[in-house]
Amino acid sequence: MAKGNKLTPQSQDFSAWYNEIVYKADLADLSPVRGSMVIKPYGYALWENIQHNLDQMFKDTGHENLYFPLLIPMSFFQREAHHVEGFSPELAVVTHAGGKELEEPLAIRPTSETIIGEMYSKWVQSYRDLPLLYNQWANVLRWEMRTRPFLRTTEFLWQEGHTAHATADEAMAETKQMLNVYTEFAEHFGAIPVIRGEKTAGERFAGAQMTLTIEAMMRDTKALQSGTSHYMGTNFAQAFNISFNDENNEQAFAHTTSWGLSTRFIGAIIMTHGDDQGLIMPPRLAPTQVVIVPIYRRDDEAAKAQVMTEVDKLAKQLKVKNIRVKIDSREGMSPGFKFNEWEQKGVPLRIELGPKDIEQGTALVANRLEAEKESVKLTELADLIPDKLEHFHNALYQRAKTFRDSHIFEVKDYEEFKEKVEEGFVYASHCGDPESEQQIQEETKATARCIPLEGPSAKGIPCIHTGKESGYERKVIFAKAY
Amino acid sequence: MAKGNKLTPQSQDFSAWYNEIVYKADLADLSPVRGSMVIKPYGYALWENIQHNLDQMFKDTGHENLYFPLLIPMSFFQREAHHVEGFSPELAVVTHAGGKELEEPLAIRPTSETIIGEMYSKWVQSYRDLPLLYNQWANVLRWEMRTRPFLRTTEFLWQEGHTAHATADEAMAETKQMLNVYTEFAEHFGAIPVIRGEKTAGERFAGAQMTLTIEAMMRDTKALQSGTSHYMGTNFAQAFNISFNDENNEQAFAHTTSWGLSTRFIGAIIMTHGDDQGLIMPPRLAPTQVVIVPIYRRDDEAAKAQVMTEVDKLAKQLKVKNIRVKIDSREGMSPGFKFNEWEQKGVPLRIELGPKDIEQGTALVANRLEAEKESVKLTELADLIPDKLEHFHNALYQRAKTFRDSHIFEVKDYEEFKEKVEEGFVYASHCGDPESEQQIQEETKATARCIPLEGPSAKGIPCIHTGKESGYERKVIFAKAY
Repeated sequence: MAKGNKLTPQSQDFSAWYNEIVYKADLADLSPVRGSMVIKPYGYALWENIQHNLDQMFKDTGHENLYFPLLIPMSFFQREAHHVEGFSPELAVVTHAGGKELEEPLAIRPTSETIIGEMYSKWVQSYRDLPLLYNQWANVLRWEMRTRPFLRTTEFLWQEGHTAHATADEAMAETKQMLNVYTEFAEHFGAIPVIRGEKTAGERFAGAQMTLTIEAMMRDTKALQSGTSHYMGTNFAQAFNISFNDENNEQAFAHTTSWGLSTRFIGAIIMTHGDDQGLIMPPRLAPTQVVIVPIYRRDDEAAKAQVMTEVDKLAKQLKVKNIRVKIDSREGMSPGFKFNEWEQKGVPLRIELGPKDIEQGTALVANRLEAEKESVKLTELADLIPDKLEHFHNALYQRAKTFRDSHIFEVKDYEEFKEKVEEGFVYASHCGDPESEQQIQEETKATARCIPLEGPSAKGIPCIHTGKESGYERKVIFAKAY
Repeated sequence: MAKGNKLTPQSQDFSAWYNEIVYKADLADLSPVRGSMVIKPYGYALWENIQHNLDQMFKDTGHENLYFPLLIPMSFFQREAHHVEGFSPELAVVTHAGGKELEEPLAIRPTSETIIGEMYSKWVQSYRDLPLLYNQWANVLRWEMRTRPFLRTTEFLWQEGHTAHATADEAMAETKQMLNVYTEFAEHFGAIPVIRGEKTAGERFAGAQMTLTIEAMMRDTKALQSGTSHYMGTNFAQAFNISFNDENNEQAFAHTTSWGLSTRFIGAIIMTHGDDQGLIMPPRLAPTQVVIVPIYRRDDEAAKAQVMTEVDKLAKQLKVKNIRVKIDSREGMSPGFKFNEWEQKGVPLRIELGPKDIEQGTALVANRLEAEKESVKLTELADLIPDKLEHFHNALYQRAKTFRDSHIFEVKDYEEFKEKVEEGFVYASHCGDPESEQQIQEETKATARCIPLEGPSAKGIPCIHTGKESGYERKVIFAKAY
């Protein structure tokens, strides 16, 4: 670990940089339970902003929240063959409760398709009961062997949407709609450009007929799956008997979907935007958008009073504009120490205000993305901040997009594939054979991230690995991934 | 169970009424896991409004949210003697995970003092690190034998605040502050009058030195503990070594508090306000404050278009005022059926609008607390609604307070005690002897709810049960309780 407050440079050891910044920026802490973390206030405030904005998007698209039990009878997992295969190895199991051994062990939910399927079968009798458009915010547990804060923890927080529809078309439209919601959320709120696409059969959710994904590029050029939306067909409806009388009074199975985004998204924010100085928070999700650091000599009470009056006034003006502002009036720390701390925490804008500034009727504004500070008139400052935050968002998004786009490659053969996949995302034609996909992973550590919804055509281009005909309309994106 | 849509009258069987309304108003559903419920959208929307408002009050009093792990090593419970005694019998225990038996079993949190104590011991080194003012919104599990939706479920949702302070005075001030927050929340948002008081030793939280409580009276005159705030002294600090260097550079233990309010509060809302027609929602927490029912003949398309135009216009006007409004435009149901459903769901105000009303430029407004409908000018309606909701809140609060106050009794001897405790709350002098408290419970099923912060003095009045000197300054409130 790098010494003092300094971080290991990203270029030297990205993984070390990540672990250091998570703890130094006070996003999370290690817990005494293997693989679980404590999400600290700064990290949790970021999660609350994610929740708040995403939840509004869910409600705007007609969804309601509800809550299902944490514990699921083990037998439920057996009912859908792929699902049990995918999740059994990761289950945490309650065998004793209330001082007695349970008759049937209960699993802590790793995801809730099964118990929700059981309830939906009760709630759906007629086509008039459909669609069901529900979401839950919850904790889930998956017993992972190798864990990293936010990216892979045994317990994590997420939302899981679960919908049921009368027809395949409707369910598919929902699956795509929610992928678009995630895309808009990532880009508009997280300033994270994402590639939308479909997972190959080998990378699908256990039990899904189609998995759609948004994939983002981290600053080490690896991919991070940042949200997924699944079309289940009637797999779960058949397993849990979610059936209904249709308009012709015939019995039919519902078509279901599920879609989720988790605290992993915090990892995406850290690794898409962060630099060697620390975090850079996207303004629309930043717990603190503007920090004001009052500057005065410790023994000069008159200056302190004058500065604090101006600082309080400014903070009030910003709060009226719904800006999330913080005054750092901690005693016994130098301004330089404070600047450094807020830079590390990635606060977009910092305002420095001292007696000399007040004399001149100005304040210094530091922008986390720029080296130069700007002197701004105090009378205009509050009015300019919303614009500055907008510009910050746009610049941050553009910076991430430019970085990503300069690390996506189309390659002509497997040799070039192996070389370029070390440097970023690779577009390549693929036959769709799961064994070939597996071999590519063994040989290069890269996986098929998705068949992008937009991207270069694979028509007539043989598979980069087997030379066989392409299995998809478009070239597949391969990359090393988290 | 009563037939059709009718509920069993409260006076006939309050408990049956409660279970029926929970399911008929679609607040919750039974789940396939013993003692766990599914919180349905209408119930969860109520919980979201509770969360939203309470969370703002926590933030306004300087608290931040964070998140601790669900699973707690079993050995942690052993460290505080009263705590382990209180919670061990109710733990659900994970013994297997990831396909293997765990070296140390993990309990699902029944409350988080222990794991939080462990983390606080890491975070607190110096008096400068104090106070810690944190809260978490989470699910917890207590393996209860007899469960009822919202009132007592194996899994429930709650918030648990946990603070650490340098001095006993500060911690005690925090404990009292949070009791006041709960009081204000219950009365201002829930329209539920509560009695604030201290628990007797026998009723304290396991590990606390003092437990403060708010107690509400349900319409069957039983008490419901609706929120508690605990002063732990240094019990948990000593058990988990939350110690610090004080200003004199001497080692000291922190003083901690915890305070919680849960989905039980939904039970309090149901049973404080509900009547034989169903729920009555307090307007400031109601998922839907106003429902608009458009009225037209099914075959009259012109009337429908005209009515829907007016209805949409009105709904928009109300939304601008941040009123939570719903239009019930479901086809194939009579207005009467709809009226009945919204009355059962306890929506405070209902607006009925048909072609004749529009002709007269008026609408009918039905108030869930009043038998008569009122005709209101359409041009004035939207402006009048916020006031009407305010009046509704006040009337609802006053109704609950009048009911409660007419069911609180001061009694002269144990015979009268036994008689009156069947009819409500009883104020009685008590010696404070835990064995006597226990005997009273066995003989009358009533428990000591609290020693109220305000109430009749017990000075010089012998214990109603033992004749000994009163153990407290004030008379104790006894009641049967949920």
